[in-house]
Amino acid sequence: MTAYVEPSFERDTNYIDDRITKDSPTWPVEPGRYRLVVSRACPWASRLTTVRRLLGLEDAISLGVCGPTHDADSWTFDLDPGGLDPVLKMPRLKDAFENRQPGYPRGITVPALVDLPTRSVVTNDFPQMDIDLIEQWDAFHRDGAPDLYPQALRAEMDPVMKRIYTEVNNGVYRCGFAGEQPAYDAAYDRLFTALDWLEERLTDRRYLVGDHITLADVRLFTTLVRFDPVYHGHFKCNRAKLIEFPALWAYARDLFQTPGFGDTVDFEQIKRHYYVVHSDINPTGIVPKGPDLSGWMTPHGRESLGGSAFGDGTAPGAIAEGERVDPADNPAVGPDGVLHRSN
Amino acid sequence: MTAYVEPSFERDTNYIDDRITKDSPTWPVEPGRYRLVVSRACPWASRLTTVRRLLGLEDAISLGVCGPTHDADSWTFDLDPGGLDPVLKMPRLKDAFENRQPGYPRGITVPALVDLPTRSVVTNDFPQMDIDLIEQWDAFHRDGAPDLYPQALRAEMDPVMKRIYTEVNNGVYRCGFAGEQPAYDAAYDRLFTALDWLEERLTDRRYLVGDHITLADVRLFTTLVRFDPVYHGHFKCNRAKLIEFPALWAYARDLFQTPGFGDTVDFEQIKRHYYVVHSDINPTGIVPKGPDLSGWMTPHGRESLGGSAFGDGTAPGAIAEGERVDPADNPAVGPDGVLHRSN
Repeated sequence: MTAYVEPSFERDTNYIDDRITKDSPTWPVEPGRYRLVVSRACPWASRLTTVRRLLGLEDAISLGVCGPTHDADSWTFDLDPGGLDPVLKMPRLKDAFENRQPGYPRGITVPALVDLPTRSVVTNDFPQMDIDLIEQWDAFHRDGAPDLYPQALRAEMDPVMKRIYTEVNNGVYRCGFAGEQPAYDAAYDRLFTALDWLEERLTDRRYLVGDHITLADVRLFTTLVRFDPVYHGHFKCNRAKLIEFPALWAYARDLFQTPGFGDTVDFEQIKRHYYVVHSDINPTGIVPKGPDLSGWMTPHGRESLGGSAFGDGTAPGAIAEGERVDPADNPAVGPDGVLHRSN
Repeated sequence: MTAYVEPSFERDTNYIDDRITKDSPTWPVEPGRYRLVVSRACPWASRLTTVRRLLGLEDAISLGVCGPTHDADSWTFDLDPGGLDPVLKMPRLKDAFENRQPGYPRGITVPALVDLPTRSVVTNDFPQMDIDLIEQWDAFHRDGAPDLYPQALRAEMDPVMKRIYTEVNNGVYRCGFAGEQPAYDAAYDRLFTALDWLEERLTDRRYLVGDHITLADVRLFTTLVRFDPVYHGHFKCNRAKLIEFPALWAYARDLFQTPGFGDTVDFEQIKRHYYVVHSDINPTGIVPKGPDLSGWMTPHGRESLGGSAFGDGTAPGAIAEGERVDPADNPAVGPDGVLHRSN
């Protein structure tokens, strides 16, 4: 199987790249054996949160959620009672990396898949993880789960996803972490060149590739939903807000209003993460109150472009009670975990 | 004469508050005697730049322009050849404060009016300075100059200007300079409460008070024109951009497109000032490339509300060659110093 694997750019991509596969003697697909550890703040982890939900893998792979801020050492389970993950019984994700490799020398990152018997990380190689949920765990997908990476579309999807990764997903970080003006200026131009390309592409297509939601949409969405709350100001990606791109903004709302997308977004945790953790960019640690989020649930009008979110499949049901986003952190979500259209 | 004087809030308002008046034995109104020193970056100085131009006082009071960035010590004449103001023959505005009072202990601020014979600061008391240009220098106003502070409107103007000062002009700084989350949160709410009030007020009025441009409009404009380039991101005033307030944005464009307003705006110097000088907020010193400024010259549609910029008077003519804004710093201005409508 030749899955699309993203190229590295600046980002330390030296991950633990074991894989959970159907035929692995070490890490076989096995419901109940692994725990997906994420932070709702992190765009890379949010890919997994959404894919797991779209595919209905909640019963097969449990979810641990780290808090939005972390120290230099590790993401932590500070949101959980007693500051311990209720299943892993550990306070810090780093403990699961240490269990895998004592003295683990690299970054402690989310998303990570943790083997429960050994309480050790199997993989944090995020570019492969969503693809493996799609390809390796298909026997445990819910009825009506979409095919997010259809064989017939891969030749078109792969270059689109590559460009989204290098120019958009990473592009915003390239702006925000630039240490010198020329590097920032070049990063800004690259980013908005890509957003202009996407604006044009999405003007007459409802989804990035094909007529239904695919993994390419998931991967773009996680950056778009953070754009106005964080990247526009904090990372100086400020030629325009997302809401100033007519097609991109309608496209982002269309996805947001689809179960599996907006109902997994925690805007407050997203903002707290970036504005508190990056003290070199925001020394005061003050978290902006804006932007106004009420636009996310307004009608998007994308139905007229044709296509449908799930094709022959169905939308996922309501989020399980223990995994719901706090309605105080996302005005679109009710206490029932369900997205509600604004009036 | 009881002119409106603004109350202090946080800001150190301990200025040199001498005044140039018709009947002053020390600092009489006298064409050619004083030099107005500003920075195009500074909103308080920009009040004076615009009022001087609207009133046609260019020949009576010359203009010195400090660069957008300054050290902890002083604004400097680093834009001038050799780094010296061509009239005052000094590198730093501080020198003119020292000439007035050796060991001058307070902030070196713009705008400042400098007496040329003694090369010393007469006043930097900005809340009084624009009013005095209106009231004390009327014998030297150009033909067709507007009355920016009409007696008949003062009872209405004064509370409007007071609220604009405390809630908007200073309100953005209260957000940006807040050291703690609760102070910021409160400042944000105050600011946007005031902007909502202005949005409503300006929905069916072309100008803030009366049917023509007044000093109240000048004082609001200097904050609005900086809102999206600086305050929205740098000061975290990010509930919405100015362009998201339909009436305020159209009102701001209406003013911007009026000679004396947009043709005095140097967006690049504005951005460089805030993003470079406030190293405690922006340690990298990187200046954002955005926002896209092309909207400023688009049609505003405010003519339908009635009123006219100058009533029985006229607009000022083109800016004198030596005082023009660099077209590279303001896409609306041509090399001739004239504002050009976008197509």
